[in-house]
Amino acid sequence: MVNEASLETFYKIVDQNQDDYVERLREAVAIPSISSIVGHRDDVVRMSHWLTSLFEKLGIKYEARDIGSHVMDNVDLKLPPIILGTYGNDPNKKTILVYGHYDVQPALLEDGWSSKPFDMIETSKGQLIGRGASDDKGPIIGWLNAIEAHQNAEIDFPVNLKICFEGMEENGSEGLEELIANEADKYFKGVDAVCISDNYWLGVTKPCLTYGLRGICAYKVTICGPGKDLHSGVFGGTVHEPMTDLFHLFSKLVAPNGDILITGINDDVAPLTDEENKVYQSLEFSLNELHSAIESKTNIYDNEIETLQHRWRYPSLTIHGIEGAFSSSGFKTVLPAKVIGKFSIRIVPNMDPKRVNELVEKFLKDEFAKLGSKNTLSIECLHSAKAWLSSPHHWNYVAASKAVERIFKCKPDLTREGGSIPVTLTFQDALNKNVLLLPMGRGDDGAHSINEKLDRSNYIQGIKLFGAYLHEIASCKAE
Amino acid sequence: MVNEASLETFYKIVDQNQDDYVERLREAVAIPSISSIVGHRDDVVRMSHWLTSLFEKLGIKYEARDIGSHVMDNVDLKLPPIILGTYGNDPNKKTILVYGHYDVQPALLEDGWSSKPFDMIETSKGQLIGRGASDDKGPIIGWLNAIEAHQNAEIDFPVNLKICFEGMEENGSEGLEELIANEADKYFKGVDAVCISDNYWLGVTKPCLTYGLRGICAYKVTICGPGKDLHSGVFGGTVHEPMTDLFHLFSKLVAPNGDILITGINDDVAPLTDEENKVYQSLEFSLNELHSAIESKTNIYDNEIETLQHRWRYPSLTIHGIEGAFSSSGFKTVLPAKVIGKFSIRIVPNMDPKRVNELVEKFLKDEFAKLGSKNTLSIECLHSAKAWLSSPHHWNYVAASKAVERIFKCKPDLTREGGSIPVTLTFQDALNKNVLLLPMGRGDDGAHSINEKLDRSNYIQGIKLFGAYLHEIASCKAE
Repeated sequence: MVNEASLETFYKIVDQNQDDYVERLREAVAIPSISSIVGHRDDVVRMSHWLTSLFEKLGIKYEARDIGSHVMDNVDLKLPPIILGTYGNDPNKKTILVYGHYDVQPALLEDGWSSKPFDMIETSKGQLIGRGASDDKGPIIGWLNAIEAHQNAEIDFPVNLKICFEGMEENGSEGLEELIANEADKYFKGVDAVCISDNYWLGVTKPCLTYGLRGICAYKVTICGPGKDLHSGVFGGTVHEPMTDLFHLFSKLVAPNGDILITGINDDVAPLTDEENKVYQSLEFSLNELHSAIESKTNIYDNEIETLQHRWRYPSLTIHGIEGAFSSSGFKTVLPAKVIGKFSIRIVPNMDPKRVNELVEKFLKDEFAKLGSKNTLSIECLHSAKAWLSSPHHWNYVAASKAVERIFKCKPDLTREGGSIPVTLTFQDALNKNVLLLPMGRGDDGAHSINEKLDRSNYIQGIKLFGAYLHEIASCKAE
Repeated sequence: MVNEASLETFYKIVDQNQDDYVERLREAVAIPSISSIVGHRDDVVRMSHWLTSLFEKLGIKYEARDIGSHVMDNVDLKLPPIILGTYGNDPNKKTILVYGHYDVQPALLEDGWSSKPFDMIETSKGQLIGRGASDDKGPIIGWLNAIEAHQNAEIDFPVNLKICFEGMEENGSEGLEELIANEADKYFKGVDAVCISDNYWLGVTKPCLTYGLRGICAYKVTICGPGKDLHSGVFGGTVHEPMTDLFHLFSKLVAPNGDILITGINDDVAPLTDEENKVYQSLEFSLNELHSAIESKTNIYDNEIETLQHRWRYPSLTIHGIEGAFSSSGFKTVLPAKVIGKFSIRIVPNMDPKRVNELVEKFLKDEFAKLGSKNTLSIECLHSAKAWLSSPHHWNYVAASKAVERIFKCKPDLTREGGSIPVTLTFQDALNKNVLLLPMGRGDDGAHSINEKLDRSNYIQGIKLFGAYLHEIASCKAE
């Protein structure tokens, strides 16, 4: 049973200290820990020190794991450490692993920000605007604030917490997968469930729990013709042009209405069950929100349910671009010699990446053969990740759902997402434990855009939510 | 009648002075007159001074016409002058206008040159390797050497010469068309025919006269969807993707075998006459040369004649690239919001650019409508130029043909080219006079490539050819 009085005290402390929490976030935002820019690597490391200072202050045992170096833009760079933390070690309590990241996306005032991106401001509407406020500094500091609030309130912390904060999430999570695999039976031993706060509410008013993500199979298709780029005037009409072949080939992949045309690709898609279908009926989502997100009315489906189903539970295929062709503004009479088309398929349960690769390869080869071209084709799968689907009936989700009801007085939406968050699957596969995505921010936070923000209410209520979730975890029965 | 003795003397003088001519070319090559690089604009101007000094030495009246300025790479730059020259003013002689350009393509040793590009060397095979040696410093200096040789030999110059040398040919011939139009009845008044030496033999052993060029219609096709680039995971499968539409649309333009599929586009193509067909039977050209030029065996046609006909006298369509999509190496989960596909059609006699535009626009709109996409389409013709076709029976060609026989002891090939040389049509339209393309260099000179060269024999025999051509001009009957 949750100790209601303790929770109420915790909420009160959080409310009382909210300005301090905002200042703490401001301090963190001020460190431009951009992991994808060489010149900011020191800032990422500085951000790790900022965090471990806080760990020390809060009495969280930690290790800042050196995960080696990598080459970026021809520079050999030390990777920022992965911070592993342990708070509590009571064999009578459950152990929850929380993951987040302390690096951020690049941001420049010139990109169109309305204020300096690393100088967090609060608007009159209570929006905390600054790079990383929502992705992912607000959430990771949220966990630490929740710990501190328990200390301030002198309430027993309801679970043992394991912490995994990385500094390379916005740059491919270099080194993370290996560390998780290595530590599954060591540092992460005894973890009962995982909670990741690194995504968003579907809309702007209703909290959600996220229980599924699409996977991805990304491809690079190379068509080689002449040994060098040619002048289109001199050679046009006399040689098989790789661009012509590529346009024919890729036009066969997907219909303008989004249907994937690769033979057999849709056969394994999990059928829509009645239970799943029910989830879609009450979600906080409207086509208006979609229109505002895509800044147009070019949606394929004229209703919310089909739109979300095609975002979350059906595969899609996007052609991203061509490497090797003319891509600048202006005009150039070039006949490109070698072009590399790139596309990816978002895969869903029960599609298997290996099977998808086989189908893609066979289809492209068959279609290319039909073109009768003397050019050559090669296909490479750049990377692939399975879809991820959890059960919202698991105690980890039930606890989170109850916590949402406590803080927001409503049941959370049960959502999935169209993109992938690779660490989700990594944790699930390595630890063989349930993973929950418990977002703090809203759907319009603009994580990778200009004017990234976190609403003060989401931040403060989020801290309460994290605390309440851990209390619910403590009181629920783990089967 | 040609004065045979005068010509023999002229040839002898040319042979005697050939090392001086090579040194003169070396001096010119040493000036890196690259018109498309801001930092080299002074060199282009310096090259114009080098030329006008030579004009003065040879007693050629000239004007270095200031044609204003332009903006390049955000820099306001003075354009290099167009040098107009007049050599002789005898009402009893014909007046021939020769055109050439004194600017060159960029070149860096790092591009892969085997020697410093502006430090002309001569190989043991007699190749003069240096940027601009063949394109177009060799030819323009060739005309001046021919004048000097007449002076040295004390032979009467057979024609009045008008000269037009520009310094912006490799960068769009800024200001040239306007000047030609303005001067048609002034500086160029009285011109009987035009001769341009700025192209190449078809092969490497047999001289040619060039009597036709394909035209061009270049297009920019914009498909707009979302208001900004989207994440393919979040939105893939739910919005109409501009890339999907573009691939479908462009796949309809041209077949992998080069056939243009735009309705009606082939209807106006001039039929192949027996006379024209005969020209193709004896040309110095082999598929081996094509294979070496395209560095592959991806030619569509397995014989020389069809290959050349599709290069010269049939239209072709090339897709150049896409602006607005992902074009770097690596991979990015982007769903491009607005993509601009670029393609061009090489047009031939009797295709009319206006009619081609109409057909292209109608076809693309019809095909786009069939896609059922909510994205929007717009089509822009970036520029167009008619094909050019001259008559090899004109006295200008007959004179050149006789001159070739004198110097090379064979009849020249009658060739056309697949690309366009806009000034050709400009002169023909503005002056309403016959234009002849009389190349000096060989097909393997690599005009815009690394290791551009001009064979010493082509240079020296070319000077003789230019002189002999002018003597033949003087003795032929102009109808």
